Amino acid sequence: MLDQVVYVAAVSVLGVFEQAYFSLQVIQARRKYSVSPPSTAGPPEFERVFRAQANCSEYFPIFLTVLWVSGIFFSQAISSLLGLLYLYGRYKYFQGYGKSALGRLAPLYFSAKILWALLAFSTLGVLNTLNQLYFDVDFLQLLNSV
Amino acid sequence: MLDQVVYVAAVSVLGVFEQAYFSLQVIQARRKYSVSPPSTAGPPEFERVFRAQANCSEYFPIFLTVLWVSGIFFSQAISSLLGLLYLYGRYKYFQGYGKSALGRLAPLYFSAKILWALLAFSTLGVLNTLNQLYFDVDFLQLLNSV
Amino acid sequence: MLDQVVYVAAVSVLGVFEQAYFSLQVIQARRKYSVSPPSTAGPPEFERVFRAQANCSEYFPIFLTVLWVSGIFFSQAISSLLGLLYLYGRYKYFQGYGKSALGRLAPLYFSAKILWALLAFSTLGVLNTLNQLYFDVDFLQLLNSV
Ligand SMILES: N[C@@H](CCC(=O)N[C@@H](CS)C(=O)NCC(=O)O)C(=O)O
Ligand SMILES: N[C@@H](CCC(=O)N[C@@H](CS)C(=O)NCC(=O)O)C(=O)O
Ligand SMILES: N[C@@H](CCC(=O)N[C@@H](CS)C(=O)NCC(=O)O)C(=O)O
Repeated sequence: MLDQVVYVAAVSVLGVFEQAYFSLQVIQARRKYSVSPPSTAGPPEFERVFRAQANCSEYFPIFLTVLWVSGIFFSQAISSLLGLLYLYGRYKYFQGYGKSALGRLAPLYFSAKILWALLAFSTLGVLNTLNQLYFDVDFLQLLNSV
Repeated sequence: MLDQVVYVAAVSVLGVFEQAYFSLQVIQARRKYSVSPPSTAGPPEFERVFRAQANCSEYFPIFLTVLWVSGIFFSQAISSLLGLLYLYGRYKYFQGYGKSALGRLAPLYFSAKILWALLAFSTLGVLNTLNQLYFDVDFLQLLNSV
Repeated sequence: MLDQVVYVAAVSVLGVFEQAYFSLQVIQARRKYSVSPPSTAGPPEFERVFRAQANCSEYFPIFLTVLWVSGIFFSQAISSLLGLLYLYGRYKYFQGYGKSALGRLAPLYFSAKILWALLAFSTLGVLNTLNQLYFDVDFLQLLNSV
């Protein structure tokens, strides 16, 4: 049974490593630009790093939800692959935002697209399972066995 | 087995759609009131939309936790229904907060009540399972089969 | 099957109670220091309470992820114990940060260490499961049966 979620679990763990890295970068930026807690205001260089981590944190639960739902109800292989791409996109977002506000945009669009794909697959997977329950039709059987 | 969580999964997916909608509203408000990242300060109209989304995002993981725990350990039917009500309450909260700070209060109280109910059912469900493990008593068997 | 996750579920529910307590403290601090939404700026006493809750909220999904992954793939007993310690550390963090910015540091280091441990066990558990799948070796079988 664990083998049916081990890849999405692996991607989730990788995501936690990434979030930990983002947090450490904020701590470092706090030191570099002397922005002591509880303050969150500082030079734009600091605020970009601070907001980059805040934005990634805000989306992390959303990401995990669609990663797991599409992984369980649609296809683990497709979900974990998209999950890896999402984490890559967020890394680029964090780096880009750190350099300039504009630098965040391209990776943001990229990771937003992945998130929409995961959301679409989650929806399909859930609808398919409801279909099976009520109409005994499994139109995703082949896909799910990928 | 999937049928035991498909409704809470469906509500979670709906919740992600809602969070996506809130995010898009913040992006629109940033354009409308010219508040460019990394800034988060602007006219009260902007700040209310910004905070509404921030507040809903902050509660989203808490909501998912009690939705799933009470859905798995207590009753999927009751949890998903409460989950739908919570998402409705948060929609009203977002709309209300967007209009005025006071407008957020009634829907906030409503969704807080739902959250307490889900938390109570989660606690009951977990305690019941522990009871079954140690004392072989299942006082929720009837309710869980609802 | 539920018995394999009931302790991590119990710790998660406890975590939700803790987050609810933190939120209520922010609401109280808003009243005490007259900081009306959508504003989040106020005297340092308010901002410390506000940031303490924000920081704990930000880490909550990360905590849940490693709690569940290490609970399922490594050892439920070890994970739930570490989970309890983490929640205790976060309580101390909240209290300490409320008193002074410095007061947050010792509990922060403590809960960060717990988080790293949970992350390490999650990684080990996932790697072990992948190992079993591909090489039919289960080097954690003994530990997992703890
Ligand atoms: N959002 C956090 C990310 C990094 C973090 O967790 N920092 C620790 C050590 S400086 C903290 O206690 N931050 C205080 C806070 O978030 O208000 C921050 O702004 O600092
Ligand atoms: N909390 C976000 C919600 C919407 C969002 O994700 N916005 C994108 C595009 S404007 C972003 O990169 N925001 C920058 C930020 O959150 O600092 C915000 O304040 O903007
Ligand atoms: N982060 C919240 C924590 C407590 C909470 O949920 N407060 C409710 C009632 S005052 C709220 O609507 N807060 C508005 C907001 O978060 O902007 C806050 O700053 O207030």
